[in-house]
Amino acid sequence: MNSVAIVGTGLIGSSFGLALKAAGFAGHIYGVSSQAAAEAALAAGAIDSIASLENAVRQADLIYLAQPISRILHTLRQLDPLVQPHALITDAGSTKQTIVSTAQANIHRCQFLGGHPMAGKESRGAAEAEADLFRNRPYILTPGNLETEAAQTFRGWLEKIGARIVVLGADEHDHLVAYSSHLPQLASTAMAATIAEVSPDSAQVAGPGLTDATRLALSSYDLWRDIVSTNTEPIVEALTAYIQKLDHLRENLRTRQLHDEFTAAATFARQLRRL
Amino acid sequence: MNSVAIVGTGLIGSSFGLALKAAGFAGHIYGVSSQAAAEAALAAGAIDSIASLENAVRQADLIYLAQPISRILHTLRQLDPLVQPHALITDAGSTKQTIVSTAQANIHRCQFLGGHPMAGKESRGAAEAEADLFRNRPYILTPGNLETEAAQTFRGWLEKIGARIVVLGADEHDHLVAYSSHLPQLASTAMAATIAEVSPDSAQVAGPGLTDATRLALSSYDLWRDIVSTNTEPIVEALTAYIQKLDHLRENLRTRQLHDEFTAAATFARQLRRL
Repeated sequence: MNSVAIVGTGLIGSSFGLALKAAGFAGHIYGVSSQAAAEAALAAGAIDSIASLENAVRQADLIYLAQPISRILHTLRQLDPLVQPHALITDAGSTKQTIVSTAQANIHRCQFLGGHPMAGKESRGAAEAEADLFRNRPYILTPGNLETEAAQTFRGWLEKIGARIVVLGADEHDHLVAYSSHLPQLASTAMAATIAEVSPDSAQVAGPGLTDATRLALSSYDLWRDIVSTNTEPIVEALTAYIQKLDHLRENLRTRQLHDEFTAAATFARQLRRL
Repeated sequence: MNSVAIVGTGLIGSSFGLALKAAGFAGHIYGVSSQAAAEAALAAGAIDSIASLENAVRQADLIYLAQPISRILHTLRQLDPLVQPHALITDAGSTKQTIVSTAQANIHRCQFLGGHPMAGKESRGAAEAEADLFRNRPYILTPGNLETEAAQTFRGWLEKIGARIVVLGADEHDHLVAYSSHLPQLASTAMAATIAEVSPDSAQVAGPGLTDATRLALSSYDLWRDIVSTNTEPIVEALTAYIQKLDHLRENLRTRQLHDEFTAAATFARQLRRL
């Protein structure tokens, strides 16, 4: 792998560039993004040069799509005539079914492998990028031929940057992240919106718990519009299960059931921290 | 103020002892607790000696009740015959109406002032105590004569340990913390319990968001049983408002309403961080 095109040089794309370099990648990294984002990535040392999509992709052995989901879908419809046949296209989109099916319908001249690094932070942009963002974090790959030369090379670099590869079907991925990622986001947004509307003075007695509970509520709607619109059904299912559980707690505030729910919840929370 | 009795030397009681000493308190601090908890507080340097409730309270100018709520209620029923008339009794319980009314009914020979430091951490016990636990955190006091000598002295020490005093009626306090503290706890417990029950494999794709969202779920039921049973109505009201908001989000995942809720939530979350 001599040449990489990172398309979308925000937090994830730029962190991937920094991580590759920190892991010893000595080839060339092209950045394809808006002028401002590409310049920030260049300043951060995450890319070696700024290029147009066409120029970057024509030379790249790896094409890493780290745009918002709707932009990834748009890019996938343009890439096929531009790629080298031995290249690998992969993406870092937060939902997988729509992206994988769009790739299947549009990419014929080289391999596509869906991906989703379970990494991130509150702040966005290349200036916040970190070479260690993926370290010890799950990195989902959707099924495909993982033994092609291009796929083996990519997997090798993921291991070098410290990611823990997990292979999951796009459908299964989208169902699992509806609970692990999309539900926590909407729960935090709902929490902050509820208190803002019904009891804003509660802010004056806020402890660290409310700060934690409203951290995800700081997230940008721009990112979430795409996630919600490409994963609506699993999210409805997760919200429904959560609302049912909250109803159950409300009905059982003074019964033994509350004890049982606290125990089940604490057990899961501890397991999560041991993984 | 020459002598303080800390009744209940867990995280909060021991942190209060450490904070007093760090702020220059040179008098004697008695610790009243179970043998194990009192020894841990002594080892942590949070108290100067271990005493029985009777011996500590007979000598104390300030009696600081930092037990679980049900134990505070029990202690309040025993204290009156033991106290010095110039002493001040205060507490650190997480709900205030039940405690204040129990104090009003039982404490006649000295002043009582309800309190609630909005401070805490995941781990419990004297070994986790910190002199800075109250620094820059709201410290609620319930209304009463704040100008008595005992109350002025206590307020002075709260300021020296860095707490931000907020005076709130017990009823108003309990209503506000139902949203700022009890709702986040139950939302986190419900989140972890839902995922454990419906989609436990989501743990394998968990990012930092789920870790944040399930932190409070690690809390001990023992503490929360007392909180929930002494603040049931405001908690039911807060849960109901939260469930309605989640319902609203679920119905509007693909409408402009979702944008508006994200905006309102992010605005509140940012305000909270500026306070």
